[in-house]
Amino acid sequence: MLTAMSLRQRKQQRAREQIVDAAFALFAERGFADVTVADIAERAEVGRTTFFRYFGDKQEVVFSDEQAIIDDWIGRYRALPPTTDVPAVMARLREFTIALCHEMTADAEHYVLHETLLADNPELYDRATRKFQRLVGAMSAELRERGVPEPAATLAPQVALACYRTGRHTAGLDPAALPGAVAAAFEQLTEFVPRNHALPPGTGTRMD
Amino acid sequence: MLTAMSLRQRKQQRAREQIVDAAFALFAERGFADVTVADIAERAEVGRTTFFRYFGDKQEVVFSDEQAIIDDWIGRYRALPPTTDVPAVMARLREFTIALCHEMTADAEHYVLHETLLADNPELYDRATRKFQRLVGAMSAELRERGVPEPAATLAPQVALACYRTGRHTAGLDPAALPGAVAAAFEQLTEFVPRNHALPPGTGTRMD
Repeated sequence: MLTAMSLRQRKQQRAREQIVDAAFALFAERGFADVTVADIAERAEVGRTTFFRYFGDKQEVVFSDEQAIIDDWIGRYRALPPTTDVPAVMARLREFTIALCHEMTADAEHYVLHETLLADNPELYDRATRKFQRLVGAMSAELRERGVPEPAATLAPQVALACYRTGRHTAGLDPAALPGAVAAAFEQLTEFVPRNHALPPGTGTRMD
Repeated sequence: MLTAMSLRQRKQQRAREQIVDAAFALFAERGFADVTVADIAERAEVGRTTFFRYFGDKQEVVFSDEQAIIDDWIGRYRALPPTTDVPAVMARLREFTIALCHEMTADAEHYVLHETLLADNPELYDRATRKFQRLVGAMSAELRERGVPEPAATLAPQVALACYRTGRHTAGLDPAALPGAVAAAFEQLTEFVPRNHALPPGTGTRMD
């Protein structure tokens, strides 16, 4: 029974991958707007019914890994020892964000196609924006649950997203540049705070 | 001739305001989805042609002040003496963001209706997200033009947006709480940076 289940699961996984690969190949050839679900199903050698078993529409194929990424992040964060120390939380989010950039750009060609699709299709761009807001919301919920007080629990993932967006802007369409550009944005955060802010309370002197 | 122009401009301004007021009244009564452009035009006592002279669709009415707010922000920023000092730029963005929160909530009833519409209609929520990204993009362009180096020019407005979003989350639907909640989020940023980061280069000791 267990073997039968895994066989079915492997088949499902393969059908899903075939659909995603076929869709991205077609988007690259013809552009997102000119590809139909029927085209994708035909290229993937599956029926339309099979397509709709896995995806609601062709937009969903572009974000096929969305829930997996969110679950994976939350799972990895839960595996870390708990901390409510705000700089420590921020340092973790920095590591997570840079790791995500490495994962997103591991397949450089796929990454460039994905980014080009978003730039050319406002509805995909909106969908990507919602995806990142969901990820940020899920991280905030996790931080709150682990005792990080407000507003830090809400703000820290939002600031991580700000650093990701900034790095994405400066790296442009160069996948190799993305992780470093995002790291530079996090580094830049330290410049935002006037130096005297960081003195221990009560010393009352400026260092600059 | 000048008088004739101003008279026409005043008429246009009045028609625009009538449309916006009528639309918000109808949205409050029936919900966004159940209001048509014809309904809005009828309530505003203008023709459909007049409606479409000012707005592309009923979504646009919800964001009627979008371009004015962007132009206003950029104009106000240009009026300040130039600076490329990153903490000074961030302090300005903080003031601007809090001032914007005061403006957005000046009409408390309108603010609550606007926020409720966004919460209930994903397409309006997406549109609002795009609006803030446009504002952030315009501020970044302005900072770049005034000599603020990258990545600060891109990051600073993104971080201001992160603080706005955080304040909006903690304030909930209470308009009076928004400016203070956003100020608290900016204040929280100082906690994100490990203290030793703020020491002058070369001292090499931790303060905590």
